[in-house]
Amino acid sequence: MISVSIIGAGNVATHLYKVFKKTEQVSIVQWYNRDLTKLSSYKNAVSITDLLSELKPVDIYIIAVSDDAIAKISEQLPFKDRLVVHMSGSVGIYDLDKKNKRGVFYPLQTFSKEAKVDFKQIPICIETIGKKNLPLLKSLAEAIGSKSYKVNSDQRKALHLAAVFVNNFTNQLYRIAHEITESEGVEFDILKPLILETAKKVQDLSPYMAQTGPAKRNDKKTIKNHLKQLENEHHKDIYNLLTNSIKKTHGK
Amino acid sequence: MISVSIIGAGNVATHLYKVFKKTEQVSIVQWYNRDLTKLSSYKNAVSITDLLSELKPVDIYIIAVSDDAIAKISEQLPFKDRLVVHMSGSVGIYDLDKKNKRGVFYPLQTFSKEAKVDFKQIPICIETIGKKNLPLLKSLAEAIGSKSYKVNSDQRKALHLAAVFVNNFTNQLYRIAHEITESEGVEFDILKPLILETAKKVQDLSPYMAQTGPAKRNDKKTIKNHLKQLENEHHKDIYNLLTNSIKKTHGK
Repeated sequence: MISVSIIGAGNVATHLYKVFKKTEQVSIVQWYNRDLTKLSSYKNAVSITDLLSELKPVDIYIIAVSDDAIAKISEQLPFKDRLVVHMSGSVGIYDLDKKNKRGVFYPLQTFSKEAKVDFKQIPICIETIGKKNLPLLKSLAEAIGSKSYKVNSDQRKALHLAAVFVNNFTNQLYRIAHEITESEGVEFDILKPLILETAKKVQDLSPYMAQTGPAKRNDKKTIKNHLKQLENEHHKDIYNLLTNSIKKTHGK
Repeated sequence: MISVSIIGAGNVATHLYKVFKKTEQVSIVQWYNRDLTKLSSYKNAVSITDLLSELKPVDIYIIAVSDDAIAKISEQLPFKDRLVVHMSGSVGIYDLDKKNKRGVFYPLQTFSKEAKVDFKQIPICIETIGKKNLPLLKSLAEAIGSKSYKVNSDQRKALHLAAVFVNNFTNQLYRIAHEITESEGVEFDILKPLILETAKKVQDLSPYMAQTGPAKRNDKKTIKNHLKQLENEHHKDIYNLLTNSIKKTHGK
């Protein structure tokens, strides 16, 4: 049994609470938040507190707050030599206060408030200073059915940056496609199977091997026609830049 | 029973042949290709020919050749007043020779030679001149389990362009993410569940609603750090352009 306390009450903290609650191998000792009203609907199911001084000894303290607040709250913890981890992709392990043992437990996935989260599908990037506490973080990931990867802070930052490309930027391309179809009065729905297939294809094939289309073939006529069709200058820029990127990747 | 003949022997033609062959409501009368050797492995299963003059009367002639060859081959057909359709996203219906009845049967999906194709997951954009032959194309789509959408040539061209954004450009973002993770020696595999989830999210939510991340929040600190991390100038440009695009979409 792994005992934990959660610090913070945002999306990630809440999803984590829910999966821990369902997990026999994890016991949630306390849930801390500065503003207790955010935890009020959970107060009958778990011990809640707004005082760091009330935090009892546990195996792992999990800081699930915004990136900017991690360092400060780790400083404010009124104890030492215990294992304290944060959950951020872009904050270094050394940003945690050194009075405690430090670690990172970073789930690489997109969390929205509404959507259900299946931790079995979420890779967790774990990091500790020294090897001693790594198995405990690995066990915590295993307990909730997640695959864990040992990833150092530089690697984690690279993943966080790469995630912006495959998630935020990709989603913006979907948005542009939505604008293009909408402007011709045609349903965006028609594109949904292609969106899914594009993502599925790189589960087995490298993105390099999976590429197709006019840019890869350097099909100048189609590229020219597409640029003529695009009325939004910003979309034209994106078309040109990504077309050139594909051409460069594929030696055209 | 719908009788068809296929013209062309590329990826799309071959996938179409395979699905028709399995479909009771469709009878493949002939398969034409200029170069018969490409069809030699099918010669015991279907009547093959390299002479347009040998094409017998059927309900639908399906031209599945490269965009540039469509107009020419439709001119060369030695008969008139029959239904001839092409399968291209970017070629107009009026590019087909007017001596025959014209139509479009455009499956919006990415086809690779190797990958299995499930036509049940492929939307088919159909178009005819006048309403008379539309039900036949709709029936052909239904016969292979596909959902069909009535889409005019301008709309189809918009879809084809939008498909470049959600397929080719998205895949290139995956490629860049691959380069970023590789340069830090961390597994691209860790990103695969996020890639899939990003695509799944917009099956139910609009891309506008699905957006998250530093650009949408206008989180200047993270954006600055990401730009510092990116060594490739081309990747920096893409980061800036898509970040600005997201900011603009979300009024930041």
